Amino acid sequence: MYKFVVKGTAFSSVDPKKVNVYENYLFCISEKGSISKMIAPGETEYESIIQEYSNINKFQELTKGQYILPGFIDLHIHAPQWAQAGTALDLPLYEWLNTYTFPLEAKFADVQFAETVYANLVSNLIKNGTTTALYFATVHRESSLRLAEICSEQGQRGLVGKVVMDDLEQNPDYYRDETTALALEDTELFIQEVQELNKQTPQGVYPVVTPRFIPSCTDDALKGLGELAEKYDVHVQSHCSESDWAHSFVQERFGKNDAFALNDFGLLTEKAVMAHCGFLSDDDMALFAEKGTAVAHCPISNAYFGNAVTPIAKLLHDYQIETGLGSDISGGFSPSLFDNIRQAVMSSRMLEDGVDKDCCSEKRGVSGSSITLNEAFYLATAGGGDSLSLPIGKLAVDYAWDVQILDSKELPIFSDDEPLMDIFQKILYLSRPENIEEVWVQGRKVHDKNKTRLEGQK
Amino acid sequence: MYKFVVKGTAFSSVDPKKVNVYENYLFCISEKGSISKMIAPGETEYESIIQEYSNINKFQELTKGQYILPGFIDLHIHAPQWAQAGTALDLPLYEWLNTYTFPLEAKFADVQFAETVYANLVSNLIKNGTTTALYFATVHRESSLRLAEICSEQGQRGLVGKVVMDDLEQNPDYYRDETTALALEDTELFIQEVQELNKQTPQGVYPVVTPRFIPSCTDDALKGLGELAEKYDVHVQSHCSESDWAHSFVQERFGKNDAFALNDFGLLTEKAVMAHCGFLSDDDMALFAEKGTAVAHCPISNAYFGNAVTPIAKLLHDYQIETGLGSDISGGFSPSLFDNIRQAVMSSRMLEDGVDKDCCSEKRGVSGSSITLNEAFYLATAGGGDSLSLPIGKLAVDYAWDVQILDSKELPIFSDDEPLMDIFQKILYLSRPENIEEVWVQGRKVHDKNKTRLEGQK
Ligand SMILES: [Zn+2]
Ligand SMILES: [Zn+2]
Repeated sequence: MYKFVVKGTAFSSVDPKKVNVYENYLFCISEKGSISKMIAPGETEYESIIQEYSNINKFQELTKGQYILPGFIDLHIHAPQWAQAGTALDLPLYEWLNTYTFPLEAKFADVQFAETVYANLVSNLIKNGTTTALYFATVHRESSLRLAEICSEQGQRGLVGKVVMDDLEQNPDYYRDETTALALEDTELFIQEVQELNKQTPQGVYPVVTPRFIPSCTDDALKGLGELAEKYDVHVQSHCSESDWAHSFVQERFGKNDAFALNDFGLLTEKAVMAHCGFLSDDDMALFAEKGTAVAHCPISNAYFGNAVTPIAKLLHDYQIETGLGSDISGGFSPSLFDNIRQAVMSSRMLEDGVDKDCCSEKRGVSGSSITLNEAFYLATAGGGDSLSLPIGKLAVDYAWDVQILDSKELPIFSDDEPLMDIFQKILYLSRPENIEEVWVQGRKVHDKNKTRLEGQK
Repeated sequence: MYKFVVKGTAFSSVDPKKVNVYENYLFCISEKGSISKMIAPGETEYESIIQEYSNINKFQELTKGQYILPGFIDLHIHAPQWAQAGTALDLPLYEWLNTYTFPLEAKFADVQFAETVYANLVSNLIKNGTTTALYFATVHRESSLRLAEICSEQGQRGLVGKVVMDDLEQNPDYYRDETTALALEDTELFIQEVQELNKQTPQGVYPVVTPRFIPSCTDDALKGLGELAEKYDVHVQSHCSESDWAHSFVQERFGKNDAFALNDFGLLTEKAVMAHCGFLSDDDMALFAEKGTAVAHCPISNAYFGNAVTPIAKLLHDYQIETGLGSDISGGFSPSLFDNIRQAVMSSRMLEDGVDKDCCSEKRGVSGSSITLNEAFYLATAGGGDSLSLPIGKLAVDYAWDVQILDSKELPIFSDDEPLMDIFQKILYLSRPENIEEVWVQGRKVHDKNKTRLEGQK
């Protein structure tokens, strides 16, 4: 009846503020890799199911100190920039883009090079517990497709965008779409190719309409992309109101904010995810909420290039906007959503309290801005799933069995009766990828630390 | 002539802004564990020294992809709080102290419990590349001594303080010094015991005069501690101007800022290290500079409890104050100074740019506040050494051979001619403790990842 049954203690968000503990539950996984049933200890079937699935070798019991978390959902990551992660962050944005980033992305015309970097990135993300990622690739259709194939092969749920940047004035000659028409043609072909690939990919790979951001695209491209998003009912991603510069640029070009400009082109859809959004006005937020468009919060990257802290508490609670977390490799240096969870909390506290000691404490920060660790965890999991309109990011019936199994034995736990929610906090604040023992996507094991180690020894 | 010779590529600060690369140097280590000589490729002795020390099995050549960094110096860490690292950070400070921190520290009356936690902490810090740490223990003399012994045994350079908190009004009855007289007696005895232990400890263990902070101590205790610091010429540590609350408390009690009040008690010495210092005025900074007192910057902890960002660029460049980094376990969650290096850069950028989008960009932040990755690295190494007035934190003649050897093979490096300073940045931004292969203190290997792994398999 089930593909397999797992017994263990798990943590999962039920809403932004609340995390449930499922202590010693049985998780019954369907042939399609989703959760069919969750059974608490003491329920009638509990013992008989264990018996039955043990007998046929389809029962896994977590060992002492192991815990289940939903896999993380990275809502914003520039796959090619993995090759420069951690470098050049001292530079101003303009120099960072033109000396490092664009020349690097241009190299992805070489599919061989792309394959090397992408294969390394996807396996790294999986080891970091990221079971789903929403990728910017590059302008190159062929190597962007290679990224989708690598996700498909490695078992990660990948949403991939061939980037569009067609404005002749705003983009370097060595790295842009040749013409607007070609940008749209390539995007349409890419959508069809990835949708074809999706048919043989149990966990799903999805094409994403991806204007880099308004400043790099012509009106015609933006309009054409909005039409393609509608025609194929696919996801959309871009950057929105990231920095003072981007915010002002769009105001000058359209006399309105990013959000309304994107909406005019049909790009603020239910399936759209906009990165950063640090400078949304109240009207912009209301529009996001109305359209069901999601925000990808990238707290590490924003510390470098965001010019302000995205007011996550306000997005979540005042406007109920779908919100998740992004690593934004390589504006952010870390591929780990654990690191981004921590920074989301810290940045929110710094927005709450303010940063400048010479400002009196009443005026220094923005009261009501801090978020809890539970809320940051929600962003990395259930919030990401909602943002993508996919049944992922939660341990609940009909959700995909996308999980990471963590080992707590290296954590500073010195008591046998440590409360489970304290262990949860230690896991979130102190885990490293090496503490992730197994990663599963859609009911398939895609990473096994012990197996990898044994194979490494041969 | 030398104890051994190491060939490898190393990175070390020469001043706050500049990091030198020593490519394929020979590091010649004395019997006492210090660097006697550094020889560049091409210098006359280079080949003959390799030959000579290979012949007698005292030559180590780093493998491809390995790099040497100075060991990190953690200038502020509450050793007992390791047991709660990563928990309860959503609570307000008062509740965090009274529900979690003080009850936990009180348990260190039990030397057995202390030993378990301290042994685990010290080995964890070593694995994280921390070769020297300046510890707050607890009020208990005996278990504080046990911490110094554990540092001595495990080979870490430890500076340890028995904490003084004697004010009957300000401290909980279950956790404080019984009387002022006993607090001073215990401190003096502790100083003598640790100085005795130091005689059999090649890397050094040092007693530290440690008033928790002004609010928890009586005037008599503060005065007596200042006298002990002078009598024994030992290090001093405390918290200074950490938060709005602490800053105001001292103003009300003494009509002056923390810095001047501490100085009145003889506690601002050349060998003193004050944690946080987020609210120093310009006069306070000038006093720190004049006295040679150091600042322990704890950027992760400050995001939770600091109420503002310590203006590190100003301390370093306008006032030339000795400044280093502290993990501040468990106000900060991470034992890793890599994490604190990253946060030091990010927090400084957030001070530079500001956090509140609704504030215009000119008034949002404090221009001139951002620090580079090199500067943050300096804080964790050479700046820490200067702060402690010890010959550590640099690769230079007569400095201790306190190093960590990092393996870069898991980093995203896809080209054989990646510039060394880019690799350095990737190491700082992306390393995890698992990438630290070996740790050496005073010429002794105190951690070997491969050996640990092999032993773990038996
Ligand atoms: Zn981006
Ligand atoms: Zn402290």
